[in-house]
Amino acid sequence: MEQLEYQEGRTELETLGEFALIDRLTDGFECNQKSTIKGVGDDCAVIGTGKKKTVVTTDMLVEGVHFDMMYTPLKHLGYKAVAINLSDICAMNATPRQVLVSVAVSNRFSVEALEELYAGIRLCCERYDVDLVGGDTSSSRIGMVISVTAIGDVDEDKITYRKGAQCHELICVSGDLGSAYSGLLVLEREKVTYQANPDFKPDLDSYDYVLERFLKPEPRVDIIKYLAEKEIVPTSMIDVSDGLASELLHICKQSNCGCEVYEERLPIDYQTTRVCSEMSKNMLPVSNALNGGEDYELLFTISQKDYEKIKDSKEVHIIGHITEEGSAAVMVTPQNTAIQLRAQGWKEE
Amino acid sequence: MEQLEYQEGRTELETLGEFALIDRLTDGFECNQKSTIKGVGDDCAVIGTGKKKTVVTTDMLVEGVHFDMMYTPLKHLGYKAVAINLSDICAMNATPRQVLVSVAVSNRFSVEALEELYAGIRLCCERYDVDLVGGDTSSSRIGMVISVTAIGDVDEDKITYRKGAQCHELICVSGDLGSAYSGLLVLEREKVTYQANPDFKPDLDSYDYVLERFLKPEPRVDIIKYLAEKEIVPTSMIDVSDGLASELLHICKQSNCGCEVYEERLPIDYQTTRVCSEMSKNMLPVSNALNGGEDYELLFTISQKDYEKIKDSKEVHIIGHITEEGSAAVMVTPQNTAIQLRAQGWKEE
Repeated sequence: MEQLEYQEGRTELETLGEFALIDRLTDGFECNQKSTIKGVGDDCAVIGTGKKKTVVTTDMLVEGVHFDMMYTPLKHLGYKAVAINLSDICAMNATPRQVLVSVAVSNRFSVEALEELYAGIRLCCERYDVDLVGGDTSSSRIGMVISVTAIGDVDEDKITYRKGAQCHELICVSGDLGSAYSGLLVLEREKVTYQANPDFKPDLDSYDYVLERFLKPEPRVDIIKYLAEKEIVPTSMIDVSDGLASELLHICKQSNCGCEVYEERLPIDYQTTRVCSEMSKNMLPVSNALNGGEDYELLFTISQKDYEKIKDSKEVHIIGHITEEGSAAVMVTPQNTAIQLRAQGWKEE
Repeated sequence: MEQLEYQEGRTELETLGEFALIDRLTDGFECNQKSTIKGVGDDCAVIGTGKKKTVVTTDMLVEGVHFDMMYTPLKHLGYKAVAINLSDICAMNATPRQVLVSVAVSNRFSVEALEELYAGIRLCCERYDVDLVGGDTSSSRIGMVISVTAIGDVDEDKITYRKGAQCHELICVSGDLGSAYSGLLVLEREKVTYQANPDFKPDLDSYDYVLERFLKPEPRVDIIKYLAEKEIVPTSMIDVSDGLASELLHICKQSNCGCEVYEERLPIDYQTTRVCSEMSKNMLPVSNALNGGEDYELLFTISQKDYEKIKDSKEVHIIGHITEEGSAAVMVTPQNTAIQLRAQGWKEE
């Protein structure tokens, strides 16, 4: 009988990044079921034996790591927990159909607080026509943990992986980038002020857009429908959860290619720019777009032949193109300097 | 900006049981997808549009609530987290195929500790021929949380729900009951002794069976195969996670019937009996069987016509029969007294 925390030969978790840790932990696992089409390593797993495939994804939100109860309304939290999983379903070019939601809470939460959380879960399910089909509620000694599994379906020939991008193809992204992180910056600033002076009433009205982007992201189911209507099957796709740079690197690595995106093409909302200028004269909106994360937009590549079909879309922006195997992933500045992209993403604790 | 824990009209979580809480939280959710065959309310959700259906379940294990790191080896914990989900798949008469595993851990755990956990996850996946296809790792401020989703499949006409039991049918249970809880009692006793005297070396050798039943339960995939070989489709089924009494009441409620089980027919291992006698002269093995929980055996009902096919099985025990609508769920003692069953299950914090 002993505490099972190793003292000898101990490797601290911080020494590995999240992706390296997952690689190390899942090394040696094999997929043997004939119904397993794709296991670990994309936005979703793909399973099934028929022409219509099932895609499945799961994501966990931990209090104090992924959300701060100080400024996260529970209804928004429930909405977001479902939304970010639906976003992963969309990233496979699939349609979300069902979710399972498990929640662990300590007794500092009341039944009414949990009802608020579930009101948000329900709102997101209703908005995106998704059924809640299972889950689990449990107590926890401290804090709240929410784990959501989402299920969707897609025709076999429409499945879009991270691999599949080819040289000269166009790189597209939906919506705008960096606004969610800007919302977080505002909330963190107000929190500090509030902690210093609890009588302080923050005025958040002029930050509606960036706050909503952070607190209540929307999965881009509309983009999946739009692509289907236009008969475009992207050659690769991923959702932007860790920042544009990290996601571009995933696509380049798995598609075995490089890329060039143009700084001036990156879609950045004016409110993101305003928040950056308020925070610090050294904070560049483009950094938020590249590394901010949590935008839950879709990043995808399409064949040049599909350019005409998409060029007039207000929601899809062409930001660059794929380059040949062996070339780097770069952003080209207005001064025509190529900056190599690095994954920074959000640092977890 | 405010702490979102309600002060007014606050209902404490403890005032509702787990099942009542789930009912309250999921009230008003509707299933609208045509691929949703069964939502919340059974061991698994059932989805799909073809003849072969997909079943999905999810379960969360929280440190300090579902496991005590003091006496839970991480490898066993990983194994158990997968096993209990596969047990839910079996309870639908389905075959498990894939799992997704999410883990949140604080930095008091090392990479090596997580590798131990995943070694157990892998062992269970390999033993039951199940593919790990996804998941998530995350930090947590305190403690460990493991959330597993399991996926299986079953022919449409073989799906076994909790509803479906009919008057006069036979009630069967696999393996033995109460041994997992006996294992927990032993571990708790040794923990107390160890905390009083850290030099104490517990001798657990003579408790191998009950300890393994608690620390490393096995999903009864073998029983599902056996039933298929014998061409038996149970009329109702559930796995025994909260204790026999609670599970019988679920079947009776959902099948709209009563039941009679016979105390002397309940399968109880001699080690369970021995542990009970060691603990207290008032502790009855039958109480552990009825209310202990975590045995992960299968409880099911079969038509009387299937009696001949199953009567010689060493692993399946016929413990009673279903009674008509409106009658109670009772256990008949050797003295021929009928005791009404109540769900006690395991009390969470």
